[in-house]
Amino acid sequence: METKLGKQTIKFSMPPVITASAAVGGAKEGEGPLGADFDMIVSDDKMGKKSWDLAEGAFQSAAIELTLKKAKLKNNDIDYVLSGDLQNQCVASHYGLRETGIPFLGLYGACSTMVESMSLAAALVGAGYANHAVCLTSSHFCSAEKQFRNPLEYGGQRTPTSQWTVTGSGAAVISSSGTGPRVTHITTGRIVDKGITDINNMGAAMAPAAIDTISAHFRDTGREPDYYDLILTGDLGVIGSDILCDLIVNEGYDIKSRHNDCGKMIYYIKEQDVHAGGSGCGCCASVLCGHIMKEMKSGRYKRVLVAATGALMNSLTVQQGESIPAISHAVAIEM
Amino acid sequence: METKLGKQTIKFSMPPVITASAAVGGAKEGEGPLGADFDMIVSDDKMGKKSWDLAEGAFQSAAIELTLKKAKLKNNDIDYVLSGDLQNQCVASHYGLRETGIPFLGLYGACSTMVESMSLAAALVGAGYANHAVCLTSSHFCSAEKQFRNPLEYGGQRTPTSQWTVTGSGAAVISSSGTGPRVTHITTGRIVDKGITDINNMGAAMAPAAIDTISAHFRDTGREPDYYDLILTGDLGVIGSDILCDLIVNEGYDIKSRHNDCGKMIYYIKEQDVHAGGSGCGCCASVLCGHIMKEMKSGRYKRVLVAATGALMNSLTVQQGESIPAISHAVAIEM
Repeated sequence: METKLGKQTIKFSMPPVITASAAVGGAKEGEGPLGADFDMIVSDDKMGKKSWDLAEGAFQSAAIELTLKKAKLKNNDIDYVLSGDLQNQCVASHYGLRETGIPFLGLYGACSTMVESMSLAAALVGAGYANHAVCLTSSHFCSAEKQFRNPLEYGGQRTPTSQWTVTGSGAAVISSSGTGPRVTHITTGRIVDKGITDINNMGAAMAPAAIDTISAHFRDTGREPDYYDLILTGDLGVIGSDILCDLIVNEGYDIKSRHNDCGKMIYYIKEQDVHAGGSGCGCCASVLCGHIMKEMKSGRYKRVLVAATGALMNSLTVQQGESIPAISHAVAIEM
Repeated sequence: METKLGKQTIKFSMPPVITASAAVGGAKEGEGPLGADFDMIVSDDKMGKKSWDLAEGAFQSAAIELTLKKAKLKNNDIDYVLSGDLQNQCVASHYGLRETGIPFLGLYGACSTMVESMSLAAALVGAGYANHAVCLTSSHFCSAEKQFRNPLEYGGQRTPTSQWTVTGSGAAVISSSGTGPRVTHITTGRIVDKGITDINNMGAAMAPAAIDTISAHFRDTGREPDYYDLILTGDLGVIGSDILCDLIVNEGYDIKSRHNDCGKMIYYIKEQDVHAGGSGCGCCASVLCGHIMKEMKSGRYKRVLVAATGALMNSLTVQQGESIPAISHAVAIEM
């Protein structure tokens, strides 16, 4: 039987293996510091489709295709695909994956979706329900910006705290056997709402959720921050990362020397003019499935804790004056 | 270890138990034929909140509270809550559940969400990851109508094929032990898109997904339709149900004598002027968690196959001329 640790963590007795992964990015992501770690860079942000919305689905199609090719598996070999995205009713996933014929579990965790997806995929594989499950997600700057903020043509000025939604997708195959980094623990988050109402300051809204889940992970497992070579958040960006590192000290954990954030890593923050950094489901997904997996396989990192965070509002609730609930899910990935 | 049957079905060696459930409905649902089977009928469709959007969250809060009361459990006893809804970015679930403090897994399966939620909750409990998981979902006529079609004040005329979104929520506790109906099998659906583009004919868009999943369930398990006392779909309504029963014969299964649909059961179709019947995540959730659970406990039904269906478009993709992908997930519930 599996071991439940504390309130929120599962420790796998037979840790599922990440046997393959792939990352697809847009032109701006290709020009960033991790450009070489993407499997595919797409210069046309419509990817030959008639809308950005459909293009985002095509990023997911490309990510799953590349990943399965690396894993030497066909659609028919996959037991489940778990995906979601930021578009209303998660349509990037539905249109992007509708031709795969793989049993599909739709998720919504905003920018925490990649880790929610890995958690459930690992749970399904770890329990013996599946041999292979694919987890993936995506985001697209243009589809997100018009849906959550303003039409691009409006040219609205961005605040200093705003983040740049990554155009990209990342996919991973989680398998019951094989070689690769293993998902050893999953820590499932709770919804946390500290009253932030500024839709242009996602980092501040999401940092308290990261504090809650990362602390729960340490409490549940008895591990200390120095167990990990890297404690990686999804897209807190510059401001949210500072809040996380400063305030998690109050919970008894100093993570500053080991922390990094996909939203800080994916762009040259100043040169690429992205204000507080990258964001979006595709940020964590593409950095994790591209750069981080490469660094784990090369031996640079042996133990990584990934805590992705999501802001769970929509544009209507914010206009109605509601605060922004957030969530963070974490997985421990070890060689 | 668990048994994977065929491509899409899991058979649980230790079937998880539905130890409690509750249904909450609006005034129109209370006046329907199943009115007496709801645990709570709310006459104020804003439930004291300032918007319909927040009211839908309050339906979820009420449903989980009533269910946990029946199960004699507290929030702190629950390992996971799995929920989603039709509002953009699933905000009814996030605002409705943000104060529970329960580890939360957000799902998006449109109107298939209740069964997706039960499937994953049963999988988590069946594997020993959790003792108790709550699955729930909701819908609200007013929040759905303005988001997917027209503002209510516009008074748009409804087509004969249109369905009436149920205002309501249903919640169930799935536990590793206890008494009650058991989830013996889950069959996870694939995305099916047969090219339907009419947003006012959801039944036609979703019926092919129901055919695909129900056929897969019979194929995977070797069961025949007469194994079940009831084969229940979520919200195909009058038109979608006819399509399902007519076309599944081509797959070799005649289900007509055992089939019913929550969207046909919840309203007096003609007298309540609901055209093709009820729809929405809350339709399947409230009928299943109220009426069907009562009928199973009373002995009327011993074996029920529930296949909920969801339409996976959004209003933008339909305006862009895209067809409507759909999905159906099924669970076998047995006494």
